[in-house]
Amino acid sequence: MTGKYVSDSYTEQVQILSQSTLNGYNRLFGGRLMQWIDVLAAVVARRHSNRNVTTAAVDNLRFEGPAYANETIVLCGRVTYTGRTSMEICVETYVEELSGEKRLINVAYLVMVALDEHEHPTPVPPLIPRTPEEQREWEAGRERTRLRKQRRAQ
Amino acid sequence: MTGKYVSDSYTEQVQILSQSTLNGYNRLFGGRLMQWIDVLAAVVARRHSNRNVTTAAVDNLRFEGPAYANETIVLCGRVTYTGRTSMEICVETYVEELSGEKRLINVAYLVMVALDEHEHPTPVPPLIPRTPEEQREWEAGRERTRLRKQRRAQ
Amino acid sequence: MTGKYVSDSYTEQVQILSQSTLNGYNRLFGGRLMQWIDVLAAVVARRHSNRNVTTAAVDNLRFEGPAYANETIVLCGRVTYTGRTSMEICVETYVEELSGEKRLINVAYLVMVALDEHEHPTPVPPLIPRTPEEQREWEAGRERTRLRKQRRAQ
Amino acid sequence: MTGKYVSDSYTEQVQILSQSTLNGYNRLFGGRLMQWIDVLAAVVARRHSNRNVTTAAVDNLRFEGPAYANETIVLCGRVTYTGRTSMEICVETYVEELSGEKRLINVAYLVMVALDEHEHPTPVPPLIPRTPEEQREWEAGRERTRLRKQRRAQ
Amino acid sequence: MTGKYVSDSYTEQVQILSQSTLNGYNRLFGGRLMQWIDVLAAVVARRHSNRNVTTAAVDNLRFEGPAYANETIVLCGRVTYTGRTSMEICVETYVEELSGEKRLINVAYLVMVALDEHEHPTPVPPLIPRTPEEQREWEAGRERTRLRKQRRAQ
Amino acid sequence: MTGKYVSDSYTEQVQILSQSTLNGYNRLFGGRLMQWIDVLAAVVARRHSNRNVTTAAVDNLRFEGPAYANETIVLCGRVTYTGRTSMEICVETYVEELSGEKRLINVAYLVMVALDEHEHPTPVPPLIPRTPEEQREWEAGRERTRLRKQRRAQ
Repeated sequence: MTGKYVSDSYTEQVQILSQSTLNGYNRLFGGRLMQWIDVLAAVVARRHSNRNVTTAAVDNLRFEGPAYANETIVLCGRVTYTGRTSMEICVETYVEELSGEKRLINVAYLVMVALDEHEHPTPVPPLIPRTPEEQREWEAGRERTRLRKQRRAQ
Repeated sequence: MTGKYVSDSYTEQVQILSQSTLNGYNRLFGGRLMQWIDVLAAVVARRHSNRNVTTAAVDNLRFEGPAYANETIVLCGRVTYTGRTSMEICVETYVEELSGEKRLINVAYLVMVALDEHEHPTPVPPLIPRTPEEQREWEAGRERTRLRKQRRAQ
Repeated sequence: MTGKYVSDSYTEQVQILSQSTLNGYNRLFGGRLMQWIDVLAAVVARRHSNRNVTTAAVDNLRFEGPAYANETIVLCGRVTYTGRTSMEICVETYVEELSGEKRLINVAYLVMVALDEHEHPTPVPPLIPRTPEEQREWEAGRERTRLRKQRRAQ
Repeated sequence: MTGKYVSDSYTEQVQILSQSTLNGYNRLFGGRLMQWIDVLAAVVARRHSNRNVTTAAVDNLRFEGPAYANETIVLCGRVTYTGRTSMEICVETYVEELSGEKRLINVAYLVMVALDEHEHPTPVPPLIPRTPEEQREWEAGRERTRLRKQRRAQ
Repeated sequence: MTGKYVSDSYTEQVQILSQSTLNGYNRLFGGRLMQWIDVLAAVVARRHSNRNVTTAAVDNLRFEGPAYANETIVLCGRVTYTGRTSMEICVETYVEELSGEKRLINVAYLVMVALDEHEHPTPVPPLIPRTPEEQREWEAGRERTRLRKQRRAQ
Repeated sequence: MTGKYVSDSYTEQVQILSQSTLNGYNRLFGGRLMQWIDVLAAVVARRHSNRNVTTAAVDNLRFEGPAYANETIVLCGRVTYTGRTSMEICVETYVEELSGEKRLINVAYLVMVALDEHEHPTPVPPLIPRTPEEQREWEAGRERTRLRKQRRAQ
């Protein structure tokens, strides 16, 4: 299977925070953000694998700061590591000020599995890291995958 | 005010169609799509003007075909024309097949107005069309604006 | 096919603005209003045609003013013009004060197409305008239809 | 305080059943219908009292039959009885076939209380029943009110 | 059919009030609460009958006080009375303060009917009241059932 | 600060899967489940700390199986480990068959932080594990916390 680059499936998503996305503190409700992250990760994984996909796990999702009513939110998703049938996707979420400046509010890693027409796991193209940054992420992804397997074995 | 390019504010948005986005025919509910279009147009207009914005009008929104459960939807928004305080935004919506192929399902033109801190209309940077295609769109946008003004005058 | 009157399918819709309908400015979110407009236009078109219908286009949707939390919203929909298989529906949206007074906040024209059991376009009863106002609307509708066809031909 | 007629505040509401309104049996979710009934009753009560209102109770809400995807739903709300600060509202819900025929699916009685600017209960105009049917409803409403008070006293 | 105890199907539900659950007064929207009550009553009825169920009626639903953004809401549901194929479920809703203290905001009685695989009503296990309180509720439930039948007969 | 037991804040949550909770495959949408998990974890953390709380991280959320329309879902949340101002909450999600049998579909660990009235982190009661199982979870929680800190330091 021919490999693919990070840029082949990099995807962005935008939102403007309406009242219906806020929790009782008038800040972006974390559960709603997780929903957006899940959808974006699935689109990235579809674009990498050209397959239907399913979410297997969410790992290391961290909130780095709040977001408020009316702010523009940008989610950026990219493949960081691939196994045989699984893909690790990193989604970073930012508040984008009107000036264009961005403030990180969330980082999450998700594991998506590609499915064939019978909904069984099916191989995905290997990821080809090109930049040193992509190489580092790939190695960190391999380590995270090893830890996840170890945890499940327990 | 320094002009800006179409590419300075071009924005994409993705969705995967869950059951909650479908009408009673199991096809994408048009009203829901309009909601996504409105948000994307607002982000494009914010990025062009670096201002808060409000939707003044939706014009020539046409459905070109249906979309079904589980399909990936891509919305592409760009500024096509600018007046003194208003921006015309074109949003094209596609179904993106797993193969990556795209099928157009909707085209819409929205008029967004930039607002200052008192929520009054405020000038926006003029759009600088660069390609012949952008030039043609700009002229068509000027004509659509003329027609809108004429209609309102009636 | 026997013609029908505007009053045969005139329909009203009411809403009270809860927090979930507001944008980040605490005003009625335009995308949500478009969703209500789309549903009301579909009911008007079903009542005129006694058929299932689909939204073909939204045209000349203009916001005339804001609406705020807790306000009563009234949408009024009526057929303005009919083609062979399509109907033009005008939806006017008002804020209704507790005193009963109304303030216009949105006007929209939608084109709905009647569908037979195979989901193909199917003829609709011609609209019979009766009042001078209905006659003027019918003529304006015919002109808007001509412009829409011209635009699509381009 | 001058009395008012049933027809002064009679209100209708329409919906088309999208997937998001259905329960896991693909029928209209009862909880969603209750939400629509509550909003319509509040609009009727506002129109009768020209006041803000709050829902005090729901009484005798009965499901008479199911509704399915894509069906047109019509809710009809009217005042049936008035106390000093409270109004009893009856909401009947129908499926409206494409032929225009209607099938009753729900009947509900709600008690709404009018509120002054300090959110305290405030008097409402007495209802003036005109037809024998309105008169019968008014008497039944008085009896239901008596039973409600008796129940609360226990 | 072997009888069952109240405790066999007693169920609690919790919510935290986000903005999307509030009405235009920034208080919990009654229609949303009714939706939660309906779901909880259905779970209680499923657990009592080990069957699918449908809501037949809502009776004596009373609002006892408001709830505000960010508050924790607890719904407590239990069977109070059983007929041959129907179950009366009482749902009490509380605001739970951070201190753990509870304040009652709503009481509702719902009638749920058990359904067999053809969606016809099917017998349910009789409820066995054990405490004096359960016994009193059972008798009150029998009286409410008698009144409901009488009302329907009219 | 006096310690607290796992049972002091153990909380359950139930849902019935309506169409609006399903993804385009007619299975429970993972993003929606994450939203429910986040709310339940927050209630557990409020009950343990008697404080407002905020979600700091989601860790090791794993999908173990699908859920379908109309199924009853039960979420069970409990504190597994406490730091000075943070609490680790485990949420297990099950499908509950009509027979009462349960099938695990998701396990998630969340880190919640207690907030004082200025929204600054504030100490929480230490968790007192009592059973061997609670003791094992507490030690695993301490190890997960160590790993999270190590990852952040990188």
